[in-house]
Formats: sequence, C-alpha cells, structure tokens
Amino acid sequence: MTRIVCAVDVGGTTTAGGLVTESGDVLAERRVPTHGGGAGTAHRTIEGVVDALVRESSATLAGIGVGVPAVVDAAGGIVGDEAHHVPELAGLPLARVLSDRFGIPAFIDNDVNALALGEWRFGAGRGARSLVVLAPGTGFGSGIVLDGRLVRGAHGFGAELGHVPIDFDGPPCWCGGQGCLAIYASGRGIAEMARARAVEADGGALLAAAGDDVMRIDAALVFRLAADGDAIAGRIVDEACRALGAILGVVVNGLNPDVVVVTGGVAVSLVALEKKLLAAAAEYAFSRALASTKIVIVPGDKRSSMRGAAALALYELDTRRSG
Amino acid sequence: MTRIVCAVDVGGTTTAGGLVTESGDVLAERRVPTHGGGAGTAHRTIEGVVDALVRESSATLAGIGVGVPAVVDAAGGIVGDEAHHVPELAGLPLARVLSDRFGIPAFIDNDVNALALGEWRFGAGRGARSLVVLAPGTGFGSGIVLDGRLVRGAHGFGAELGHVPIDFDGPPCWCGGQGCLAIYASGRGIAEMARARAVEADGGALLAAAGDDVMRIDAALVFRLAADGDAIAGRIVDEACRALGAILGVVVNGLNPDVVVVTGGVAVSLVALEKKLLAAAAEYAFSRALASTKIVIVPGDKRSSMRGAAALALYELDTRRSG
Repeated sequence: MTRIVCAVDVGGTTTAGGLVTESGDVLAERRVPTHGGGAGTAHRTIEGVVDALVRESSATLAGIGVGVPAVVDAAGGIVGDEAHHVPELAGLPLARVLSDRFGIPAFIDNDVNALALGEWRFGAGRGARSLVVLAPGTGFGSGIVLDGRLVRGAHGFGAELGHVPIDFDGPPCWCGGQGCLAIYASGRGIAEMARARAVEADGGALLAAAGDDVMRIDAALVFRLAADGDAIAGRIVDEACRALGAILGVVVNGLNPDVVVVTGGVAVSLVALEKKLLAAAAEYAFSRALASTKIVIVPGDKRSSMRGAAALALYELDTRRSG
Repeated sequence: MTRIVCAVDVGGTTTAGGLVTESGDVLAERRVPTHGGGAGTAHRTIEGVVDALVRESSATLAGIGVGVPAVVDAAGGIVGDEAHHVPELAGLPLARVLSDRFGIPAFIDNDVNALALGEWRFGAGRGARSLVVLAPGTGFGSGIVLDGRLVRGAHGFGAELGHVPIDFDGPPCWCGGQGCLAIYASGRGIAEMARARAVEADGGALLAAAGDDVMRIDAALVFRLAADGDAIAGRIVDEACRALGAILGVVVNGLNPDVVVVTGGVAVSLVALEKKLLAAAAEYAFSRALASTKIVIVPGDKRSSMRGAAALALYELDTRRSG
C-alpha cells in the first residue's frame, strides 16, 4: 500500500501543506499566510495546517515532514536560533511538538535541504546517486545529497553554498562573510547591486522602469531589462551568470555530483540564460568533470518545496528504520 | 586476527610500499624510485614493490591498496587518462593487474583520496563521521569523507578542491580554470607568484636567497623569508593564508565536516601560521559552523600516504563486503 505523508513548507510569507503519496502525488493541499494569526504565530499556523490535513485524510498518515527557512538541528528536531523569517520558531522542538500532538513520526529540516530531497526523490534528480540543489531566491539556499544521504554537516550548516566565497577579495556580505556567492547571484544581492548602480547617473533605465522608486528595483526587473538590452542591467546579469558559473565550478570539481539542479525564485529568469550559464561553468570546471555532471535549470512551481517536505518525511522514515 | 594489507603510494619521484596492519602499524617498508627502471616503468616498479612485500610477509595478506597521483576510476580499478606524473599508468586496469598476479583483492584510488581515508582511519580524523583533507603540496590535492563514505564523484573528479575558484575574476590557472585555489596556496602557485615578483626590482631578497637563480625560488623559501620579515614574501604568504581561509570557508559552510585536516608538503610551513589561518577562515565561514568543525594542521610524515593506501584497501574490503 502506498504511504501518504503530511508535508508542510513554511515560508516567510506563506505556509503550504499537503497530503503527498510516496510517488509525489498531491492528494490535498492548503495554503495559508504564515503569520495569519499575527506576528509570532508561525507555530500555530503549522499545527493548524497539519490538523486540517490529518482530519481530511481518510488513510492513516505515515509521518509529517516540515521544511523551515532556517538552520535546523534535524537529529533533534529543533529549529535553530537564527530563524530570521520565523523568529518565533527559534529553539522550538517542532518535531516533538508535532509528533506528540498528532501521534505520528514528525521530521523537520531546512527548507532547501527538503527541496533537495524532493528533487532527488520526485524531480530532476530522480535515480541519481548524488545531487546538488542551488536555489537562488531572495537569499541563496542549497542542498546536497551524496551517495543517497543528505549532507547536514556537523552543526546543521551543511550545504550553505550561498555563503561560500567566490571572490576572497570581494565586498562584505550581509552574513558577515566576504565575497559570498549570494552577493552576486541571489535576488537580494542582484537587487542591491542594481539599486546602487541605479542611483548613479547611468542607471536611468532601471530607475525609470521601477517608477523612480529605487526600492522597487528587484532581481526580476534587472533580468527583464537586461533581456531588453539595457547595458547596466546586462552587466549585473552577466556577473550573476559568471558567479553561478563559479559555484558550478566549485560543485563540479569539488563534489562532481551526477546532477545539479538550479532552482528557486531566480531560476525562472535563468532558463533563457542557460547557454551563458553553462559557458560560465566551463570557465571554472574541468571539462570532463563538467561533462559527467548533468546541470538542469528547474523553475520550481509552488508545490516543489511542499513536495520536498514530503520527501524529507519519507527519507527519514526510510533512513531511521534501516539505520 | 588482525588483518594485514599491502599498501603502495606511487609518487612522481618515489614509490613507498609497506605491510600495514588494520591498526596502522607498519610491519615492513620499501621505498624505491618510481622510474628506477627508466622512464615509463612505474607499473613495473609497483609490481616489484608488491612482489617483494608479499614474499616478505609471513601472514596471508587481506588485500592491496595503491594510491596514484592521478584521477582514478576506483570502481573499475583503472587509472585515468591524465596521469601527468606517471603517464605510463594512464588507462591501465591496475587493480586487476595486481589482483590477477598476486591472487588477492587489489584497489586503487587517487593518492589524496587514499590520504583522506588514512587520516580518517588512523590519523587526525579518527572517529569522525565526516572529514575533509586539504593537501597543498606541489599541486593541491584534497579528499572528502562524508558520513563514512569517500566522495568520489560521478567521474572520479570528486574532491578536486585545489581547482575550485576562490576568485571568479582571478588569473588563469594551469588547469585551464580561473582563480583556482591552487594558484594562491599550492607549492607551485606560491613559487610561480614569488618568481614573478622576484624579477621585479623589489624582489631582491628572494632572488638573493635563491642564489640569483629565479628557478630555485620555491614555496619553502618564500615561507622562510616571510618569517624573517621580508615584505614581498610576507605578502605572498598572507595571500596564501587568506586563500586557505577562503577554502576553509567553502568547506565549513558548504559541508560543515567534523574535521578538516590541512596536510601535504606545504603544511610544515603552515604550522607556525595556524592563528593567521584560523583568523582568515573566520572572515569567510559562519562563526557557529566554524566552531563546530575542528581544523588541524598535520605536517605529514613520509608514511602518511602509504598508510592512506592501506586505509584504502581496508575501506574497500569493508565497503564492498557490506555493499
């Protein structure tokens, strides 16, 4: 009999839950504002979504999987201290809270770790032995599956590839680091770079397209203007592509996985730039290593992260059983 | 009964073989010139060393492990095409050649992969779940063990961290890449940088210390002059330390292993620079991730790589049996 799990992706804005089969079919779905009950209510939102889905299910659920936008102590089922988008979850033993209340095994992890498991189980990395997910969104998440195991690291910091230096002489990053990938290739980084240049004389087109409101310049606008031929936007996009090429070099020469999936909110703008991206990767990676790693750009749909949370639950159920 | 394996580390200059117990004790040892029989004779050297050790052993050997300075198809037991130091081995099914001749299981891998297994089994990473070895020597090798498994990659290119970009706008590397770590922090990279600066007017001390022969400037000399206060050498060493700090940032934020071992020929010069190195790492890595990864500098002795080849044989015997 096919197993069904309850999957929840907790976003800074929206929390998406679903009943998902082990083939990835979504039987039921709920989307609610994460802070619908007011600031600081994410934990109640999560419990409410799970409760509604558990009641809706005619079958017994095998487990609960939750993806959280924070560093997570997955073994302990505890959200880390630095949960900027959902500070009310910091330090919460969320897995135990959920398993105690609903009487079924519950597992939590970083949302992009879950997304990586989703791509590996249901998506572009199906059947691969090893896979790396690069997910430029507002920030820059990543997830690594090697030899069928999620790389969580000694302290839950595994796979923070958005904050590895690709220019060791580069500018400071908001994370406290220097020359991080996220400065060049995340939504926030691209927007900040474009805003800085837009206030200079020759950033006129960007500023005009943003209705003269510099804060309305975002990464999507930069990609659109670059496609329209604007030189300033074009240079920022070129740099983003070279930065992504560099991290592909890091990933391909460093781990040489079977598959790299580039996804996240920025990926939709990258589809048209695939050739440029692969050419940039070839500047940094060994040609034969690059040839042996399949690189795919997957503009995620709104279900990707929720399916990831389902994959997390299934992964944990399988791993902890056999482990 | 303790298992004993025959271990061989094939270097560009010297081939070291030994009989090693599963506790890492070396019962017998042989060191011969790799090309002692003339150019193109490395395969005969290896067979000769194994033959001598097999005859010398009173016990039946459990297996043979060989570390080769090249990319290796470990599953197939075949040396890769780009074996610059031992071109005569390129394409050779060395594992089968040895197991056929000596009638015991034989395994080969890249020498730094073997070294990583050695540090994990016998050395500074003993008991760790995950470990990364960074080995700046003439080139810059590395090895990655995650969750008790060696990361070999889809095409044997796993763990080539010497050739990941740490400056995506950096100068071209001899590998064909750009801004690679090896340019800044390998023996070859440091020597080339110092030679270039020594021919400039103010590189006088370096050139003088090398007896006015620019080609005699090597990394060890640069470290020595830097310690003596020479400004040019000091700047090159500072840059090497920052580059190593950057790759520690990549490793700690990207994989967050329990242990990082910095070893290889350059490590002996790095021991005195440990504080500088850790300070540089703190510029790039999340402080809590860095706090959870132990970083140790281990000036390898001449047995380290040979013990690594022994660890390779034991790892393969254990993995393939259970796999």
